Order: sequence, then structure tokens, then C-alpha cells
Amino acid sequence: METFTVQPIGILHCDITSKELAPKNYDISSQPGTIEIFPEFLTALEGVNKGDTIMVLFWLHKAARDILRVHPRGDTSRPKRGVFSTRSPVRPNPIAVSELHVVDIKENLLEVSGLDILDGTPVIDIKSKVYTDTDKHKHFRRYHT
Amino acid sequence: METFTVQPIGILHCDITSKELAPKNYDISSQPGTIEIFPEFLTALEGVNKGDTIMVLFWLHKAARDILRVHPRGDTSRPKRGVFSTRSPVRPNPIAVSELHVVDIKENLLEVSGLDILDGTPVIDIKSKVYTDTDKHKHFRRYHT
Repeated sequence: METFTVQPIGILHCDITSKELAPKNYDISSQPGTIEIFPEFLTALEGVNKGDTIMVLFWLHKAARDILRVHPRGDTSRPKRGVFSTRSPVRPNPIAVSELHVVDIKENLLEVSGLDILDGTPVIDIKSKVYTDTDKHKHFRRYHT
Repeated sequence: METFTVQPIGILHCDITSKELAPKNYDISSQPGTIEIFPEFLTALEGVNKGDTIMVLFWLHKAARDILRVHPRGDTSRPKRGVFSTRSPVRPNPIAVSELHVVDIKENLLEVSGLDILDGTPVIDIKSKVYTDTDKHKHFRRYHT
């Protein structure tokens, strides 16, 4: 089947410089960092505000693409499973989906928290989160209590 | 910055054959369909089970990539906003993220529900959903009551 070309829209800057330093997932992370949006995509950021929770897609440029089974969360005491049943960075198209909190925005720089992604990773998309009543409650609990 | 190549891991078959027939988002859809996983990626599906809620990434091959502002949910009564603050299919890298319910699995065919995606759309990734207690409750309410 036809392949497609992904063009980075920005890059992540943060203190996670090795896999050992990375939290295992965004839901257990409060790690801060800065997403730099490239100038040609700045218009697309209009409407993203401080205090929002956003969905961010990263291209994990250092992850293997040819491994189809892994130990969940790298825990070798758990049997290997297909990568599509995990959140492993290892997968045919190494895209990570994170929900991040927007701490601040200055021009093309988004200060975010909740990171489990390596410094220097390309950002390929940002979306609004799909909210439900229970999500709103969770969001309030996580950031306001 | 460097670009990357996305390789489809499967394709969606469903009755949504035009944009007009598509629900505006997965959270308001119960539309069924079948995801056909290409044989070379079947191993990666091990551990995905009937009854799971999965996160599926689609490459929206018919969406425009050069439009940076849109009316949210196509509603022209609402002012245009940057695409990164919306869930519009239109965006620099036209990737959709859906949460779908696995109704059944037979070999490389995943029967799913919750679709808002056009028939014939390439599938580029499947992940387990990140669960919270409130999500589990919501999942139960949605599918078991």
C-alpha cells in the first residue's frame, strides 16, 4: 500500500535526555518541557490557551520499527505481547499520543507538563482533547486540587 | 527538519462513504466497521481482545494538509480557529485518533464500533487505551448498560 510523508510541525525541549529518565507514561508524569512550534505552523495554534489539556502526537525518531512483540512497560517478568496491545514506543509507525497540560504560551513556545518523551523529539500534531463529564472532573482533580 | 515515512498497517472497511455520512467525532458515534490488519503486522495484534477499547490512528488520505484555520466542527456560525485547537481532519499531518470498541476479532479482521472515519482510510497504529478509574466507569456505562 502507498506510504505517506510526515512533516514535523515542531520539536520538544525537556530534561528527559535518556530512556532511563523517562516516566513510563504521561498519566504518571508531571515532567515539564517546552514545545517549539515552527513559525510556518504558528497560525494553526490560534485557540490553544493556557490551562488547556491538549493531545500531542510525537514521532519517536529513536524507536525501533521492526519489533512486533514486547514485554509490557519493559517489565521482563510479564510475557511478551503484540505492540498494538501496549503503549510501547516500539511499533511499525513510532507515534506517541500524550495528553499534556498547557502551563503557558509565549508566541511559538508552549510550556507543557506531563511529559514522558525524550528531549529533541519531533512533534507532528496537536489536537483538542475530547472531553467527557468524567474527564472534566479528572482534569479538575489533577490540576486544581 | 527531516521528514518521516508512515507505512499503513491496515485499512478500514465501513459504510461511511462520504463526509456527509460521517459522525462529527468518535465520542458521538456507534457506527460499526472492520479494520483489516495486513498479514505482516498480525503478530503485533496479539493481546488485543474482544471487549477492549483501543486507540486507533488513521491517516486521513483525503484531507487537506495546507489549511491552518477552520470553523470548529464545520459550523460556519463559529469563528475560524487554528486547526491545532480543533479535531478537524484538516491539518499539516492528517492523523485521526479514535477510541474504538472491539466487538470481535477473527484472524486479521477487527470488528469495531465508534467510527467517524471514511471507508478505505489507511490505519497506521493501534494502542491500548490509558485507563483511569473514571474511564473504566464510563466504558462500563457506554457498553454494558
